[in-house]
Amino acid sequence: MNWIQNKTTLSCAFPPNGRYLIGVSGGRDSVALLYYLVDLGFKKLVVCHLNHQLRGRSSDADARFVEKLADKYDLDVERGSTNVGALAKKKKMSIETAGREARYSFFAKVAKRRRCRTIFLAHHADDLVETFLINLFRGAGTTGLAAMREVSTRLVNDVELTIVRPLLSIRRDDIDKYVRKHRIKFRDDASNKNLEPTRNRIRRQVIPYVERTLGRNIRQNIWRTATIVAEEESFFETLLPKKLSHPVALALKPLRKMPLAMQRRMLQKWLRDGKVTDVGFDLIERVRALADVANSVAKTNLPQDRHVRRRAGSLFIE
Amino acid sequence: MNWIQNKTTLSCAFPPNGRYLIGVSGGRDSVALLYYLVDLGFKKLVVCHLNHQLRGRSSDADARFVEKLADKYDLDVERGSTNVGALAKKKKMSIETAGREARYSFFAKVAKRRRCRTIFLAHHADDLVETFLINLFRGAGTTGLAAMREVSTRLVNDVELTIVRPLLSIRRDDIDKYVRKHRIKFRDDASNKNLEPTRNRIRRQVIPYVERTLGRNIRQNIWRTATIVAEEESFFETLLPKKLSHPVALALKPLRKMPLAMQRRMLQKWLRDGKVTDVGFDLIERVRALADVANSVAKTNLPQDRHVRRRAGSLFIE
Repeated sequence: MNWIQNKTTLSCAFPPNGRYLIGVSGGRDSVALLYYLVDLGFKKLVVCHLNHQLRGRSSDADARFVEKLADKYDLDVERGSTNVGALAKKKKMSIETAGREARYSFFAKVAKRRRCRTIFLAHHADDLVETFLINLFRGAGTTGLAAMREVSTRLVNDVELTIVRPLLSIRRDDIDKYVRKHRIKFRDDASNKNLEPTRNRIRRQVIPYVERTLGRNIRQNIWRTATIVAEEESFFETLLPKKLSHPVALALKPLRKMPLAMQRRMLQKWLRDGKVTDVGFDLIERVRALADVANSVAKTNLPQDRHVRRRAGSLFIE
Repeated sequence: MNWIQNKTTLSCAFPPNGRYLIGVSGGRDSVALLYYLVDLGFKKLVVCHLNHQLRGRSSDADARFVEKLADKYDLDVERGSTNVGALAKKKKMSIETAGREARYSFFAKVAKRRRCRTIFLAHHADDLVETFLINLFRGAGTTGLAAMREVSTRLVNDVELTIVRPLLSIRRDDIDKYVRKHRIKFRDDASNKNLEPTRNRIRRQVIPYVERTLGRNIRQNIWRTATIVAEEESFFETLLPKKLSHPVALALKPLRKMPLAMQRRMLQKWLRDGKVTDVGFDLIERVRALADVANSVAKTNLPQDRHVRRRAGSLFIE
């Protein structure tokens, strides 16, 4: 959990002379990450900022702030704009989910245009802990618990993004210290804190309450468990086929022979490769129930009026 | 999460005409389980009760209560007695850990004498949820999170116990209802509630607080995650060798080739097979660090003045 050790590992795996994208909201964490990477000698970063259009003028000011910052460091900038409120309404998603989908779509578009598939994001240790708890309280299953890793890949609109989170073992307090030490300026309201009520309650009420009640620091311990769960998830990934040969149909016979843990991950991969958004535990279980030929139900709904159907010993996304 | 479904599964896997042990403290849960199994037609249960000697006369009264209960159902009874307070002091363990160790030693002894390796225990869904949170807040890693399964095995003093928890998907409230409906009498203080301050705080303060704050029922969701984690843990077990050929020495070369998730479980199994008690995440990580030949440290301490040493490309328990 310190910056030094992190620095060496990072520069080895991602040489600073390469070109990478970086997501910058203008908030403290992403501005600190940008400063940190520039300081490490990264010179060809492409600063990606999506205007979520959620706070009117404030959102525009965030965008201008990020543009100036990129200018200052002599970096390219890519700006996008999505009406996240309207998207959430249209797709019947929470603002948080819609925001995430919009960001990843934007990142994928930039990645394709710039021919650069690796993006740095500013999630830190406390984000990991909070996300872990959110997913736990939602009953997300293990793949949900392993939501954030230092390095992971994600298929978005046919683009395989490599997502790198250099701050994932750094605590919020340490980022605060870093920001104060280097007098880094950032937009106070740019990190959309007001958009995530559950996260806010977990951060400001639940974790402090549990620490008071049990008289111990739980953040560090949850962080450790979350890190292990994520590492182990990558082990499961090594057991899955790299690319499904025919992503539309999935043969049931080999699926049924897999252990339960592998069946779930296979279905998750198949659904994601089939461009199904927001693949959660419930959806995976509904699809898994279709694999049972004794099940008289042969169809289950997917988001956006799509569905999975069982036919002739295979599953199809329609 | 209902009794009926549970009943069929249970009687299939464990036919009621067989002989099984059952742990009975005299508290509500274990007395309800006993009643439930007798009602299902289990006739050859051996009621096992360990007096923990922690509450003087009350403990003795618990023992007498359990004996009478066994008499009433015409079942054999096995009584044991351990000074758990003294054991905890001697072994520098918490009362909770010492109590658990004493119970399992007692169960193993009875299992050997009775030639019956299967024991029913009364852990229920809320126990599972609370244990999951305790282990999470302690930073136990995934194997720790998967602490309780409906059916699992555990090697205790060379006896491989099969532990069956028929109530693991039943909520405490439902057990309450069952107990009231059938007017089941039990010893109010027999379940040692006062011995586990962390569990008590999690049950009575932490979970209700989180549910109030987030406005949702988290028990059910955590239960689901805990169940999945436990199922997936059994998948890892299928990947490990059934019995280590030479439990004293562990060759490092094959170990190092394993993925991290398998290394941890291999070491956990090796330590447990080597009769090391209380194998937690920290211990596993210390031993794993020895596997690195570049590590100048070649020895790490185990409980009870034992240690693991690296020598000639292998690890040894001494």
